[in-house]
Amino acid sequence: MADKIYRVNMTDLSTSIEDVPADWAGHGGRGLTSTIVAAEVPPTCHPLGASNKLILAPGLLSGTSAANSGRLSAGCKSPLTGTIKESNSGGTSAQKLARIGCKALIIEGQAQDDVWYSLSLEPGKITINKEEELVGKGNFTVVDTVEKRFPGKIAILSIGQAGEMQMAAANISVKDPDGHIRSLGRGGLGAVMGSKKIKFIALDAKDGKVEIADQDAFRAANKAFTKALTSHPVSQALGTYGTNVLTNIINEAGGLPTKNFSAGQFEGHEQISGETMHDIIVERGGKPKHGCHTGCVIKCSQIYNDLKGKYKTSGLEYESIWAMGADCTVDNLDQIAEMDHLMDDIGIDTIETAVAFGVAMEAGVLNFGDSDEMIRILREEIAEGTALGRIIGNGAGNVGRTYGVTRVPVVKNQAIPAYDPRAIKGIGITYATSTQGADHTMGYAIATEILGVGGTADPLSKEGKIELSRGLQIATAAIDSTGMCLFIAFAALDDETCLPALIDMLNARFGLNLTAEDVTNLGMSILKTEHAFNLAAGFTNLDDRLPEFFETEPIPPHNAIWDFTGEEIDSFWNF
Amino acid sequence: MADKIYRVNMTDLSTSIEDVPADWAGHGGRGLTSTIVAAEVPPTCHPLGASNKLILAPGLLSGTSAANSGRLSAGCKSPLTGTIKESNSGGTSAQKLARIGCKALIIEGQAQDDVWYSLSLEPGKITINKEEELVGKGNFTVVDTVEKRFPGKIAILSIGQAGEMQMAAANISVKDPDGHIRSLGRGGLGAVMGSKKIKFIALDAKDGKVEIADQDAFRAANKAFTKALTSHPVSQALGTYGTNVLTNIINEAGGLPTKNFSAGQFEGHEQISGETMHDIIVERGGKPKHGCHTGCVIKCSQIYNDLKGKYKTSGLEYESIWAMGADCTVDNLDQIAEMDHLMDDIGIDTIETAVAFGVAMEAGVLNFGDSDEMIRILREEIAEGTALGRIIGNGAGNVGRTYGVTRVPVVKNQAIPAYDPRAIKGIGITYATSTQGADHTMGYAIATEILGVGGTADPLSKEGKIELSRGLQIATAAIDSTGMCLFIAFAALDDETCLPALIDMLNARFGLNLTAEDVTNLGMSILKTEHAFNLAAGFTNLDDRLPEFFETEPIPPHNAIWDFTGEEIDSFWNF
Repeated sequence: MADKIYRVNMTDLSTSIEDVPADWAGHGGRGLTSTIVAAEVPPTCHPLGASNKLILAPGLLSGTSAANSGRLSAGCKSPLTGTIKESNSGGTSAQKLARIGCKALIIEGQAQDDVWYSLSLEPGKITINKEEELVGKGNFTVVDTVEKRFPGKIAILSIGQAGEMQMAAANISVKDPDGHIRSLGRGGLGAVMGSKKIKFIALDAKDGKVEIADQDAFRAANKAFTKALTSHPVSQALGTYGTNVLTNIINEAGGLPTKNFSAGQFEGHEQISGETMHDIIVERGGKPKHGCHTGCVIKCSQIYNDLKGKYKTSGLEYESIWAMGADCTVDNLDQIAEMDHLMDDIGIDTIETAVAFGVAMEAGVLNFGDSDEMIRILREEIAEGTALGRIIGNGAGNVGRTYGVTRVPVVKNQAIPAYDPRAIKGIGITYATSTQGADHTMGYAIATEILGVGGTADPLSKEGKIELSRGLQIATAAIDSTGMCLFIAFAALDDETCLPALIDMLNARFGLNLTAEDVTNLGMSILKTEHAFNLAAGFTNLDDRLPEFFETEPIPPHNAIWDFTGEEIDSFWNF
Repeated sequence: MADKIYRVNMTDLSTSIEDVPADWAGHGGRGLTSTIVAAEVPPTCHPLGASNKLILAPGLLSGTSAANSGRLSAGCKSPLTGTIKESNSGGTSAQKLARIGCKALIIEGQAQDDVWYSLSLEPGKITINKEEELVGKGNFTVVDTVEKRFPGKIAILSIGQAGEMQMAAANISVKDPDGHIRSLGRGGLGAVMGSKKIKFIALDAKDGKVEIADQDAFRAANKAFTKALTSHPVSQALGTYGTNVLTNIINEAGGLPTKNFSAGQFEGHEQISGETMHDIIVERGGKPKHGCHTGCVIKCSQIYNDLKGKYKTSGLEYESIWAMGADCTVDNLDQIAEMDHLMDDIGIDTIETAVAFGVAMEAGVLNFGDSDEMIRILREEIAEGTALGRIIGNGAGNVGRTYGVTRVPVVKNQAIPAYDPRAIKGIGITYATSTQGADHTMGYAIATEILGVGGTADPLSKEGKIELSRGLQIATAAIDSTGMCLFIAFAALDDETCLPALIDMLNARFGLNLTAEDVTNLGMSILKTEHAFNLAAGFTNLDDRLPEFFETEPIPPHNAIWDFTGEEIDSFWNF
């Protein structure tokens, strides 16, 4: 059965299952969400109004046995940035959606009344139900409750209180294979789902399968691909320490933004490092190595237990730990794990929210390092939607505007993540030029500048950084279309068998003859589609800039400043 | 003595008194503030950072005996809109500053420590003092206290708590001749003064006088000018009912935005109208007719007393009454007067703040019509800087973002004032294209569309409205440079003796030979300077748009929508 477009209109509660337009056929994941948003969403519309659409799309290889192919993309116009937005996550949804035969789910329109709904999809069928029981509940309750309502093994996408309240930092949350939470985290996708009044989406693939044009070729390619992934040293480090392997590394590089981006090294880095975390996890009977989706061979996730050996959180990422840790000067991993758990439950972006806390600390709303107060605010203010909760839940830029703070680390109103662009300049180009606001995953220059993957580059030097970020951003747009986890990029950059194997899988899946050049062209075309949307939404090259303070405040220990000219940055788009 | 530029640098607390550069010589008021901002402020800087500058400039005729010439302009990059900003006000400061011989006061830089200061100016002298006593105090206390500190008759510019807390709706407040408060109200100028850590500026002209090149010609021109002003019927209505003469008129036209812009007529209009207000004022021994500055011959201000006959507020404007009244569905003038008094004291824009209340009501933060709660929030939340106070004090757009509201009446993040652009379309063009965000005073199309001044035009028709708004915006930019109150425009549009008399006064003051064409060219050049600043700050023609809901929600009773195309709006700039 050919894949279809599943469409839900919340204005009149109508649904349809449509053939895939020819223009969309070659797209999946981010390429598809961005193509559909560009085609169907008026660029100047209000992100929380009836004209915005929420698009969910599995990657081109999702639902197959391909290693690491379980990423789900969601796209819309972002209520945080006002740009086009794609965010992707592991968990179980991408594979289920693909096996339902759904190439993309488009949710459009807006109910006039104040009634909440849920959606459920199975092959060839969309059901809309009113929802009362779960309104106001956190994601863990939603997952537990919804799992019991369905007889089969389902995937669940949901929003917590943050999404219901349409906070601009709200996630769409995804159940992982163990019932824990992964997050489509950046740009407020959860607020858009909330604006459509959809509390959760249940995906039941029944006995649906993804068709493979050439099974033998697919199996052979997947074997080569898996070997490339598992043998790369960064993959191995990720499986041991998780992404938090980076805390000590980035601190050493002087690029660990500390105390709301006022320094590049954190005294408490050792206490929150991946090495420390690994020991704590092992000591308490957790799992240092855990996959966020079936088929992952890197397993950078983990199960973090509390002092009593009881589950606390999983998927405790470097960027989350940095944001709650160094940026807020909190050096206690248990407190950070508690906050991570709360943010999973409330359904709110750890990076955006913790950077927002850092700005609030600068404004004097709470003290730097006061993790008890952060936890209280998460529980009593953000989850409850008090005035302070709304201020923080709408992100770092909103906190900055509301308290008149000038050191506000955002690009296009999205919080800058865990790598200081003054000390690691290539990632700064990614922050500045990304079509989605500041986002390290859009072109992870850290790979080359810090980890020596795909070559080496002096992080403090501007040289070659435009080209580095451009190449990575193009490759990432293509990878984000396949359903592959971005962490395949380490092997793809260093191991010459990796990318051909990936292309072989795409060809075997669809019966195509794609070349490496086709994949690069795909990536370029996605970036251009996204950029064109942003220009039509009113963005200009002047939005491709870092905040003023990066140019005026040198960051210790290197005392480096951000010194790219506008002209240099703008040359990014010369392709 | 030739006029000078007075300059204060708050980074190193240095001062200087400089000759006027040739390029600035022909400018005053708004023309001068915008010229200086364009010359000295980096367009992409943070409005609350060290790179922004606050410019104060009296008009070209301020300090003379010319009727209605007491407006002071202040300019900067706005923390509310991010655009260039000029706001002007009556009160006593323009005349004092002109008589000091100060063509413009430029306040630049930013102190690193948390110390507050005051400035005092007299002819040839600038003094910077540390200020402790008045920090945290409202404007009325500031005025009372500062007046006692100086032996002579001084003018005072100050900020209340809103400006200290750098709220984006904060005013710079100006003492009027009776010690009451007038406001440089729109765009958050008070936040910029707060960011410079200046609590007040005292102006002592000593025996300073403005030089007049040809006294006889000046006197004759002023006489003709005064006659034109006082004989116009709109001037007379303004002197009787204040600007609040408009409540019933705009309600009748179906353009009185009601309940956060969801209707065009307000059931309680009669209770808050100028006619009702006039009777209340007379009954309680207030003054229905009062000048906000010496030399005003229109006297649209008034003294509004409370039930016991005690002073409550003055300068109770139509737009303030509309915003607190119809937009929040409050039909009690005493409550409105109480809020007006509180906002004067706190130093916060009545329009921005009350429209922000309307959006907060739509979000369910408080109920429509609950003026007791509005008063409580002003006193206990905004003045105290609580989380909710900060949300509202940063304006309507900030409330909308923080609560995820889609019906948010702002352009360039500045609240749309008291005339619905669906029902009165010419003023909508002014809102959309103004260089300063939504602002009726930038090109008051109401004059022609509703009051029949300068011709007539059907308010519901698009026809000729681009040209109408353009002509008015050009004329307004010129008028705002003279120090003249905008209300001279009614006479200027209808009485052919008015504008020549104004030009004669300019020529007599400076010994020039300006023509009407020169004045028009001045207005055009000011608009172009401001527009160029905004483009360099990252604004595009897509920012010259009204919010989406005006296009999709018809407004009763006419059920009109906003139906200008982008192309039509953009033709505004074809001059």
